[in-house]
Amino acid sequence: MQRTDYLATGAWSPGQDAGRRQFVSFGERAIALDVGATLRDVTVAYETWGVLNSARSNAILVCHAWTGDSHVAGAAGDGHPTPGWWEGIIGPGLAIDTNEWFVVCSNVLGGCQGTTGPASPHPDDGAPYGSRFPVITIRDMVRAQVRLADHLGVARWHAVIGGSMGGMQALEWAITFPDRVGSLVAIGTCAQSTAQQIAWGAIGRRAIRLDPQWRGGDYYQAPVGEGPWQGLAIARMVAQVTFRSDNVFTDRFGRDLADMDAENNGISLWDKFEVERYLDHHGDRLIRRFDTNSYLLIGKAMDLHDVARGRGGLAKAMSRVTAPTLAMGISSDILYPTYQQRQIRDLVAHNGVTAEYVEIESPHGHDAFLIDLQQVGGPITRWLHNN
Amino acid sequence: MQRTDYLATGAWSPGQDAGRRQFVSFGERAIALDVGATLRDVTVAYETWGVLNSARSNAILVCHAWTGDSHVAGAAGDGHPTPGWWEGIIGPGLAIDTNEWFVVCSNVLGGCQGTTGPASPHPDDGAPYGSRFPVITIRDMVRAQVRLADHLGVARWHAVIGGSMGGMQALEWAITFPDRVGSLVAIGTCAQSTAQQIAWGAIGRRAIRLDPQWRGGDYYQAPVGEGPWQGLAIARMVAQVTFRSDNVFTDRFGRDLADMDAENNGISLWDKFEVERYLDHHGDRLIRRFDTNSYLLIGKAMDLHDVARGRGGLAKAMSRVTAPTLAMGISSDILYPTYQQRQIRDLVAHNGVTAEYVEIESPHGHDAFLIDLQQVGGPITRWLHNN
Repeated sequence: MQRTDYLATGAWSPGQDAGRRQFVSFGERAIALDVGATLRDVTVAYETWGVLNSARSNAILVCHAWTGDSHVAGAAGDGHPTPGWWEGIIGPGLAIDTNEWFVVCSNVLGGCQGTTGPASPHPDDGAPYGSRFPVITIRDMVRAQVRLADHLGVARWHAVIGGSMGGMQALEWAITFPDRVGSLVAIGTCAQSTAQQIAWGAIGRRAIRLDPQWRGGDYYQAPVGEGPWQGLAIARMVAQVTFRSDNVFTDRFGRDLADMDAENNGISLWDKFEVERYLDHHGDRLIRRFDTNSYLLIGKAMDLHDVARGRGGLAKAMSRVTAPTLAMGISSDILYPTYQQRQIRDLVAHNGVTAEYVEIESPHGHDAFLIDLQQVGGPITRWLHNN
Repeated sequence: MQRTDYLATGAWSPGQDAGRRQFVSFGERAIALDVGATLRDVTVAYETWGVLNSARSNAILVCHAWTGDSHVAGAAGDGHPTPGWWEGIIGPGLAIDTNEWFVVCSNVLGGCQGTTGPASPHPDDGAPYGSRFPVITIRDMVRAQVRLADHLGVARWHAVIGGSMGGMQALEWAITFPDRVGSLVAIGTCAQSTAQQIAWGAIGRRAIRLDPQWRGGDYYQAPVGEGPWQGLAIARMVAQVTFRSDNVFTDRFGRDLADMDAENNGISLWDKFEVERYLDHHGDRLIRRFDTNSYLLIGKAMDLHDVARGRGGLAKAMSRVTAPTLAMGISSDILYPTYQQRQIRDLVAHNGVTAEYVEIESPHGHDAFLIDLQQVGGPITRWLHNN
């Protein structure tokens, strides 16, 4: 299939561009944000797999996490810096079988992989938004996805699925648009970010702000190689440790030194342990593909995540969910402990709605939803057929 | 009692200066460090409580943690920026009863509360060491404490006690000087720092290095109010989150916003949640009393902590321990999980030496050893009398 549609504003035909990044722009139809501001000329980048059936009843929305993008499945290249982040879950004959389902994923609002974000040109002057980009929330991300659903002609998703921040979006979909969500799969996520989660986020934000190259968010004129990559790398290190587990780090790295200064008996202040080199590697990979301001804003959106906000409390907010809900937790997740997914199950079940909790037994920590694909995929396949 | 002895080089009399900070300097008797360098003109700051008996058999060494100092008990003031960090554990009639025991605590080598560290004058030129201060290890800290023990005339401690990094020192004492350690109490600590612990440490180091005010470690000429306090505050935030627990953060802070910008529906990038204000508060307190280079070096010493290094493996290193060992863990400790203290118990018991593990049931995380004093004190009192 050919990519025919960049910055599309016209009608869309089902299956026209499966697996290739496409764009839709909403021009003057501004999106009103939680913060009180509006954003106009919003573009949403998205990809689709499979074919929307004539009843338009087989559409599944997959929502990505912090540094993810629309490229859920497929090789790197052609605008995609990395292979699909859920490769092995989505495709013909896989857990989310694209012979059966029409799968959609869009880059979130505020992102940097095609959807409007802080690196995008401001409509007033064409210069990057930078510090002018407003704070966004998970609900704002969903608002942009609603526009995309309308554009695609999907009145109701068969399911909305997401892990981590993707699960936050899925929850907000089910609460805000119960009529448009057939079922909900929320993995390694929470109904409200906790103080500890916020604390980790705050540390990353401070590190970015401390980087002189961040320049208050207006660094886009910096020469190549400059820019706030050091602050971003530190923020990413914090996340990367919380994404994994003590045991996996020990098994993988132990106490091995990557560098070793023989003159000092292998002891110097900046010699790196293997685990530091691993974190550096992840930081380096991220800074090559991700915009620091997007990282900052999306992280803040997660910290602000609270389905109860403005809805009269948590129980009342969750009582809006009518979609059967599969909540999945990961046994070794230190960032989103399993009590948070069991809470989602309990709150939905409390309203008499079908709700199930499945635990992924894994040593890999939070990231297990991207690693232990068999354990993740099996329950999803079953869920999509039964609900 | 009067403080009579600053920078003492002469003989010391038992009980002469209980509860006041004293100093001993070792002049040209340089300390040889693990890194291969030597340090001369080393001063050690210490305090004592109680009276050393004539048999010199009732001395207990208490070792402090990362940002601690010699001031285990007593009010703030007179060179002590904070009240005793184990106030309520040590004193007349308390868990470590100073009517019975002669208690000693010294500021660690590399510290900033009286013992020689990076802010101390270099003997060559009188200017602060700064970046010239060598990397130190837990074993180096113990080397300085051995000098102090000799100075005090304590050939053998009735017990060596420590929590967190204090426990690392206590372990090194028991391994390196088995004849000088009557019994060992190691709380919330480990025999080898793990990859995850090193990762947290590395993040803090990077944050300090990113601070332009750190100036490679040579910032002591900076005007008042400048200096690398932002980097230190971020490093401290990382530690502070790992010192506590998810549940306690949630109970204490929830998702409350400390600041609230009404114009933005309470949503702005830098508005602080209560938990952020709490972390700021701890960062601010620390930067007023602690030197950034000391924080950096002591943190690195913890990351380098490995009782097995150069000793033919962990089991072989731990087989040197002949002191009966009480290992204490904290149920909610995410930084030094209880498997690490059970491992210490198991390794010591494996050699036929008395070893016991006691778990502190607390929601407070690693810091519980400074908070849940009754649970900490009871087993210590019993241990000191039975071993």
